[in-house]
Amino acid sequence: MGKLVIVGTVAFDAIETPFGKTDKILGGAATFIGLAASHFNVDVAAVSVVGGDFPQEYLDLLSEKNIDISGIEIVKEGKTFFWSGRYHNDMNSRDTLVTELNTLADFNPVVPEDYRDAEVVMLGNLHPLVQSSVLDQMEKTPKLVVLDTMNFWMDCALEDLKNVIKRVDVITINDEEARQLTGEYSLVVAARKIHAMGPKYVVIKKGEHGALLFHDDHVFYAPALPLEEVFDPTGAGDTFAGGFTGYLVKTNDFSFENMKNAVIYGSTLASFCVEKFGTERMQNLTNSEVHKRLLQFKQLTQFDIELT
Amino acid sequence: MGKLVIVGTVAFDAIETPFGKTDKILGGAATFIGLAASHFNVDVAAVSVVGGDFPQEYLDLLSEKNIDISGIEIVKEGKTFFWSGRYHNDMNSRDTLVTELNTLADFNPVVPEDYRDAEVVMLGNLHPLVQSSVLDQMEKTPKLVVLDTMNFWMDCALEDLKNVIKRVDVITINDEEARQLTGEYSLVVAARKIHAMGPKYVVIKKGEHGALLFHDDHVFYAPALPLEEVFDPTGAGDTFAGGFTGYLVKTNDFSFENMKNAVIYGSTLASFCVEKFGTERMQNLTNSEVHKRLLQFKQLTQFDIELT
Repeated sequence: MGKLVIVGTVAFDAIETPFGKTDKILGGAATFIGLAASHFNVDVAAVSVVGGDFPQEYLDLLSEKNIDISGIEIVKEGKTFFWSGRYHNDMNSRDTLVTELNTLADFNPVVPEDYRDAEVVMLGNLHPLVQSSVLDQMEKTPKLVVLDTMNFWMDCALEDLKNVIKRVDVITINDEEARQLTGEYSLVVAARKIHAMGPKYVVIKKGEHGALLFHDDHVFYAPALPLEEVFDPTGAGDTFAGGFTGYLVKTNDFSFENMKNAVIYGSTLASFCVEKFGTERMQNLTNSEVHKRLLQFKQLTQFDIELT
Repeated sequence: MGKLVIVGTVAFDAIETPFGKTDKILGGAATFIGLAASHFNVDVAAVSVVGGDFPQEYLDLLSEKNIDISGIEIVKEGKTFFWSGRYHNDMNSRDTLVTELNTLADFNPVVPEDYRDAEVVMLGNLHPLVQSSVLDQMEKTPKLVVLDTMNFWMDCALEDLKNVIKRVDVITINDEEARQLTGEYSLVVAARKIHAMGPKYVVIKKGEHGALLFHDDHVFYAPALPLEEVFDPTGAGDTFAGGFTGYLVKTNDFSFENMKNAVIYGSTLASFCVEKFGTERMQNLTNSEVHKRLLQFKQLTQFDIELT
C-alpha cells in the first residue's frame, strides 16, 4: 500500500452560515485532506502544528481514522491556529472575521522518518516556503506532488510560490486564483500558462460549477453534484484534494485517464463535506454512501450518443 | 421525418465585444434556433415578422438551409426588430444599448397550414401571449413543446408567462432567471418548483458552466466545452435550443435518456456559435466539425470508475 504525506493546517474554525453558527470546531486543511484520504485505507501522515489548547479528542479522532499524527507537533505553551468566517447567502463568497496564526507563525514542518519515501505528497495551502521545506525532506523523489494554494500567497509571496510551483506535478487552484496567477480570463489559456510554470496537471476548482483537469491539450470536466442545500462549504476544496490524492495513492496509477477518476472521487467526497458543519459529515461517512453517490455522478454525466 | 415549428424573432443585431464590433447583422432567436435545427435535416418552419428593410439575401440564406420561411411575415412599410448590445470583458454580462421593437410590437404569429400538425414546437423568447397564440393554432397536440423565456417577461407579464408555462413540456431558462422565477437560490429546489408549474423537463443554462437537465428526481449535467476564446456569446442560448429540439425531432424519442443526448447536441452547437460574430459560424458548420466536437464532449466528461 502506498503512502501519502499531507502538510497543512490543523486548526480551530468558527463558522457562520445562513443556517447557523458554530463555536470553535475542528478544522484545517490537513484535517479535511486527511479525513478524505483516509477513506481509501492508504497510509496517511499529517504534518502540522497545534497548540497546547488543542483537545486530545481531536487528535484521537484523526488517529482512529488511521491518520499518522506523529508529524503533528504540539507546542504546549502555544495556541492553535484559528480561523473564523461568515458565508454570504449565496454560499459562494465569505468574509474572514478572524485569522490568528498562533503556533502556525513559526511552523517548521518535520516529515516523519517513515514517510520520507512516500509515493505522494499533498502540499496543503500554506506559505510556499513551508511547502518547499517538506519537499526538501523527501529522501526519494515522490511519484506525485500535489500543491494547493490561494490568492493570499500570490499577493505576498509570489516569487516563493513560483519556486515551489516549479517542483510540483499537480496544482489545485480555484478559477479566480488561476486568473490572478496568470492574468488570463480564459481558463484554457490560464491552464496553459500554469503548465508552463511547471505542473503537468492543472486542476481548476469552480465550486458549485465543478472542477476542470487540464493536461497538455486534454481537458476533463467533473461537475459538482447539484445539491438541494449547501450547508457549509468550509473544507470542500481540501476534501476534494484528499479524495483526489487518496484515490491515486490507492490505485498507484498516475495517468491522465486515472486522474479523471481521482477528480470524480474528489468531487464525490466534497459533495458530502458541505452537507454539515466542519468535518462532521466526513467523520461518519460510509463506503456504501460513497458508492451510491459515485453512481449518481455517473448518471449525472454519462450519455450515449451513437457517433456515426 | 418529423416537423419542427419555431416561433421567435428574426432581427438585426449590432454587437460590441472586446474583440470588435459589427454593424447591423442577421440575428434573432428564430434565426439561431433555425440554423441549429437545420443541421439535423428535419422539416423546420420559422414563424416571425420582419420589416421591408430586411434584406432578401437573409431570407434566401434561411431558405437555403431548408428553413420554411412562409411563416415569416414581411410588413413592407415596417422596420425589422433591432437589438444592440455591448459585452463586458468577462463576456458573461452585457449591456443592452438599443431595443427597437418595430414590427415586432404588433406581431401576430401565423403557423403555416403544413406545420399545424408538427411534432415539436419551439417557443423562442417572446411575449408569453404570442407564445400561447402559437400553441392555440396547433391542430394536433405536439409531442413536445419547448419554451424559452427571460427575466423581462417575469418583470412585466408574469401571469401570462405562468399561463403559457403550464402548457409546455420543457422550459429552457438561465440560472438567474430560474432563481427569479422561483425565489429559490438552489437550482435543485428551483427546478422542482418549476416542475410544479407544469414543465416535466427543466433545462437550466449556466453559460460557460454548462447546462442542467432536470426531470423528476433525475438530473443530467452537460458542461460547456472550455474554450480558449469566446468571441461573441450572442445566440448561444438559442443555438442550444435549436440543437436540442432538432435532435429530438430527428430521433423522435422524447425520453429523458435521449434528452441527455439532445442537451449534448445543443451544447456542442452552441460551442461553435460563440466562435464568430452572430450567425457566421453556424452558416458554415459542417457535419464532420460537429462530429469531431461531439467526440471532444465525450472525452471531456466520460470516465470509467469500476464500482465494486
